[in-house]
Amino acid sequence: MKCTRCKAKAEVHLRAHNAGFCRPCYLGYFQRHVERAVDREKMFSKDDHILVAVSGGKDSLALWDVLVGLGYRTTGLYLGLGIGGYSDRSRETVEAFARNRELPLVVRTLADEGPGLAVPDVAASTRRVPCAACGAMKRHFFDAAAHEGSFDVLATGHNLDDEAARLLGNVLRWQRDHLARQRPVLQPSHPKFVRKVKPLYLLSEYETAVYAFMRGIEYVVEECPNAEGATQLVYKDALNRLEAASPGTKQAFVKEFLRNAQSLFADDAARGVPGECQQCGMPAYGAICSFCALVREVETKRARRAAAAAEHAGA
Amino acid sequence: MKCTRCKAKAEVHLRAHNAGFCRPCYLGYFQRHVERAVDREKMFSKDDHILVAVSGGKDSLALWDVLVGLGYRTTGLYLGLGIGGYSDRSRETVEAFARNRELPLVVRTLADEGPGLAVPDVAASTRRVPCAACGAMKRHFFDAAAHEGSFDVLATGHNLDDEAARLLGNVLRWQRDHLARQRPVLQPSHPKFVRKVKPLYLLSEYETAVYAFMRGIEYVVEECPNAEGATQLVYKDALNRLEAASPGTKQAFVKEFLRNAQSLFADDAARGVPGECQQCGMPAYGAICSFCALVREVETKRARRAAAAAEHAGA
Repeated sequence: MKCTRCKAKAEVHLRAHNAGFCRPCYLGYFQRHVERAVDREKMFSKDDHILVAVSGGKDSLALWDVLVGLGYRTTGLYLGLGIGGYSDRSRETVEAFARNRELPLVVRTLADEGPGLAVPDVAASTRRVPCAACGAMKRHFFDAAAHEGSFDVLATGHNLDDEAARLLGNVLRWQRDHLARQRPVLQPSHPKFVRKVKPLYLLSEYETAVYAFMRGIEYVVEECPNAEGATQLVYKDALNRLEAASPGTKQAFVKEFLRNAQSLFADDAARGVPGECQQCGMPAYGAICSFCALVREVETKRARRAAAAAEHAGA
Repeated sequence: MKCTRCKAKAEVHLRAHNAGFCRPCYLGYFQRHVERAVDREKMFSKDDHILVAVSGGKDSLALWDVLVGLGYRTTGLYLGLGIGGYSDRSRETVEAFARNRELPLVVRTLADEGPGLAVPDVAASTRRVPCAACGAMKRHFFDAAAHEGSFDVLATGHNLDDEAARLLGNVLRWQRDHLARQRPVLQPSHPKFVRKVKPLYLLSEYETAVYAFMRGIEYVVEECPNAEGATQLVYKDALNRLEAASPGTKQAFVKEFLRNAQSLFADDAARGVPGECQQCGMPAYGAICSFCALVREVETKRARRAAAAAEHAGA
């Protein structure tokens, strides 16, 4: 196959687009795609200071890399989740990426934020699915870091496969409130929130992997050990089969949803303006935010266990 | 496993319902399920005369059987599609079913309705996908037979797997007009149309197969040869994988759509009241109905081919 742009030998074939690219043209294609998405969806401008949430995986590092290449003002944010060796390797990878490119990086670690706040500990003490606990904490610390650092926007590396899997999950149960909020740009509902954007939302996992490979980005290949068997992976597998039978399915699914159906659900998003959490001061719909509620739950359960252990020791 | 109702040894296990049944209790469960769907969705009453479209497969024969068992007034309708041995065997199966139970049956055959109207001929001459040609013709002859026989309602054997696959296809491309019309009951938009109902819409393919087996119904097991590799089967496969990972997925997908989302698309269904086809008199949105347009296309292409052949012979 030949490069669709320059007719050199193609190195990558994109079935969904019925196109092939040589290495330089592919990198140009990827960069242009991101730039257009950013402009079309009014995600941010060259004046904005962008906080890029980076996990150490290919998507978030490819995002950071392409945004830097496009000349945007970025700072990385790494949140240490405390998931054993996986988190250690992720942190090292992100730190090496930032150091080698002399990019500013903010590192925060759940375990340092309070006792028992590492993801496995929260999951164990609250008996939640790790992914649910992790999601709630990530949201809080991403918001808090963006607010504290006075960033204009928070960018995450969610790709087309992530968005299609999330959409499929929302659609299988017709969760209208979730469908109402599934957009590549979420405007802040409170002055302490920042805009949240997903510049890679129409680029597939395969496309970001190829970009990361061609750019020589070293990333953590292993999946989070908690993701094994997660529902999200079942959805991705189903979508990959549909995509194989009919290339372009995933993109049409997400694109047509946003173009043609998302607005039907939008009314459901109106939850009103949040107040502020009595505990941490971040936006909250109740007296305290869901993160502080989670922390309280962890503290209560730890105290109860400690009391039970003391009683057992005294008995 | 024991029967959920009577504690006898269960013969069938329904993972989606976390229930097991012995043979008598399963047949009762299936019958009650259909009866409740008919009543809840106001499909028809004991006073109505119901035309049941039967293909010879398990779903439509199970439907006919259960409706007869519930005491409804039914007539079967078999439409011969002219798909070789498959259609021959289907017709024999349906005729035997009706004969053995002394049930009234209307038989019509596409090949007898006009030259070149058998499904393979229409597909070949119009270069359409067979399933598209077949669908258009079935719709026309089902409507025409229901109108001519003064039936109150037309019932088809679409099951949960059919409805879930159709819903997935509609959702993957967000076809709002199709979503607007995907309901278990379609009210007629013209006096020459009858109400169309799908009493099995929440019963899985597995459930109708078990019912047909337990009731000793002889049905055509082979799939239509045109269905091989059809998109619908890809959707069914994807949904079966999702169902295996999380039993109940298919039912929730269809049920929640109808309960929680279908009305959002309903405005799109307003295509106005149809006029009447200048050719056949059946309802049509244009000057002629889509069936007569198809017939015209077949005739034109046949005439053109005959002229070309004559010219070739004369040259």
